Amino acid sequence: MKVNGNNYRTIWYDKEYEDVKIIDQRFLPFKFVVETINSSDEMAEAIAEMHLRGAGLIGAAAAWGLFLAVKKSGKWEDIEKASEKLAATRPTAVNLQAALNKMNNALQSLNEDKRETAAFELAQGISDNDAESCRQIGINGLNIIKEIKNNKKGKRINILTHCNAGWLAFVDYGSALAPIYEAFDNGIDVHVYVDETRPRNQGARLTAWELGMHNVPHTLIADNTGGHLMQEGMIDMVIVGSDRVAANGDVANKIGTYLKALAAADNNIPFYVAFPSTTFDSNILHGSNIPIEERSPNEVLFIDGIYQGKEIEVRIAPEKTSAINFGFDITPNRLVTAYITEKGVFKANELL
Amino acid sequence: MKVNGNNYRTIWYDKEYEDVKIIDQRFLPFKFVVETINSSDEMAEAIAEMHLRGAGLIGAAAAWGLFLAVKKSGKWEDIEKASEKLAATRPTAVNLQAALNKMNNALQSLNEDKRETAAFELAQGISDNDAESCRQIGINGLNIIKEIKNNKKGKRINILTHCNAGWLAFVDYGSALAPIYEAFDNGIDVHVYVDETRPRNQGARLTAWELGMHNVPHTLIADNTGGHLMQEGMIDMVIVGSDRVAANGDVANKIGTYLKALAAADNNIPFYVAFPSTTFDSNILHGSNIPIEERSPNEVLFIDGIYQGKEIEVRIAPEKTSAINFGFDITPNRLVTAYITEKGVFKANELL
Repeated sequence: MKVNGNNYRTIWYDKEYEDVKIIDQRFLPFKFVVETINSSDEMAEAIAEMHLRGAGLIGAAAAWGLFLAVKKSGKWEDIEKASEKLAATRPTAVNLQAALNKMNNALQSLNEDKRETAAFELAQGISDNDAESCRQIGINGLNIIKEIKNNKKGKRINILTHCNAGWLAFVDYGSALAPIYEAFDNGIDVHVYVDETRPRNQGARLTAWELGMHNVPHTLIADNTGGHLMQEGMIDMVIVGSDRVAANGDVANKIGTYLKALAAADNNIPFYVAFPSTTFDSNILHGSNIPIEERSPNEVLFIDGIYQGKEIEVRIAPEKTSAINFGFDITPNRLVTAYITEKGVFKANELL
Repeated sequence: MKVNGNNYRTIWYDKEYEDVKIIDQRFLPFKFVVETINSSDEMAEAIAEMHLRGAGLIGAAAAWGLFLAVKKSGKWEDIEKASEKLAATRPTAVNLQAALNKMNNALQSLNEDKRETAAFELAQGISDNDAESCRQIGINGLNIIKEIKNNKKGKRINILTHCNAGWLAFVDYGSALAPIYEAFDNGIDVHVYVDETRPRNQGARLTAWELGMHNVPHTLIADNTGGHLMQEGMIDMVIVGSDRVAANGDVANKIGTYLKALAAADNNIPFYVAFPSTTFDSNILHGSNIPIEERSPNEVLFIDGIYQGKEIEVRIAPEKTSAINFGFDITPNRLVTAYITEKGVFKANELL
């Protein structure tokens, strides 16, 4: 997608310097920074510290991280060690584990001297596959938006989204935002209500920035606001992404997604979950079995913002206050209208 | 209630200086500031700019504001003008309008020279009545907490609250927090999950501070988190306050309350609304008729916090992003387990 008019992916191999480049999302929307990743350890840190994040992107990042490990040493024990470190960075999203499994299965059976080339092709394949799946999600989701457009007789379509499941969360295009970009590019009058998505504000920082770069009309709201907008008829549909979808269709996504799904159901507003099929985890039967990441309380107690042109961190709670910070919640399948993947649009019982 | 060991109300008449004092809540939790209010205009500004806020407190503040107007001029046209200005400051809470109506009805029939004494007594009465009602809400709510305690066989009781309906929102004691203080003071093991309450963070700033001052165990959470905690069995009850309760029991309260009520219903967790009966508006039949205040988008786009020991404001969204900011939402009566007032505990159909 475009950044100030230039095409970017969120992660790519730089042939000239023989390293991996990523957009360092920690500085968005205030600064656009491209970071150089030279080793598997640097990639593990970038994932854990959320220089990059998002279901698809951390899968691709883990793949490129493992490639960097193989580039340094093709020994199986070194590959295994690097893989374990990468796998431990984020527990909830399935794409990360799936990418590493795919790489490991292919690499283990190869001779040491074949592994670097193979790892490169695998990582590039995982990246390309993620981008292409997201492009297809956009096309499949467009049909849903067109239907709503027909029902609204051409009036503006208001879509609520939570967190960032745009191109910044994948290699390109995005999941939840892909149908929105596709609709916008096809001349449909769409407007997005962007949940700010506390505590890390991926909505305010990333989704608002992405949509702005693409000129898609949008309005930022506090996470508390979506229910009221739905009650007032100001939302036509909800689209969110997912970090892992269980076999029964239960959805792990950014904390707070469940609350919006409840409100959508209560107001008869369709609630869609968009994801590449790599996010579907048929090994996990119910959402309650998906591990939920607990992150530092400091993400609740402090917030980053711009003061006199400089990004700084301020404390927003009393000094002695303690906090708890779960990264995700589970939206039960009964609250999901349909699932949009690169393969089509499905009901919960059609996923397996 | 106590601040660093000393007893305070949120508003009082200072006999020595013949002015009204308020706790200026804008500086909490970082600084404890008492502000002097000398005129009705100053009080109107203090209410509109949220030096003080909360259903009961803005009622008392309007009453004291009108007293200051009467003190300056007992002429009916001056009183009327001051009253209109005070009434226009905040549209959602009914207490403000109710306090002004009560004052005006009594003052209009009096001779000009009797009005100052009468206005003082009325304002003092409204203040005392608010504090006493809240004390009774605490006692009535205690019975509910005791019942939950018996069901949990003495294990810690986890209570979720949204926004600030503590003593800072009233003249004293609070509504939603009054039963919690009462339970704590009676030796019951209670713990409060405090919604930070974006965009103005009354939970993080005021509720966390209040509870800390009273040593009540509490944990701050992002507003997105409550649903997950309920799914995980980590919440035993929800208590919130209200800015206006319609005749049918629909509840106007801080934006986001509706989302927590939906989650409580979905997880069979009791959801209580606590308020003095002055907050009940029998003239409004349904919640949908309660006016919802829209506030400045800047409250979403900027946030206050502490940086290097100083309170500053930082921008937390891209520069060109626009936002929308509704202050309240409506929780339908079907989602409310019961209403706790100074008169007892009621079901929706028992309110009228």
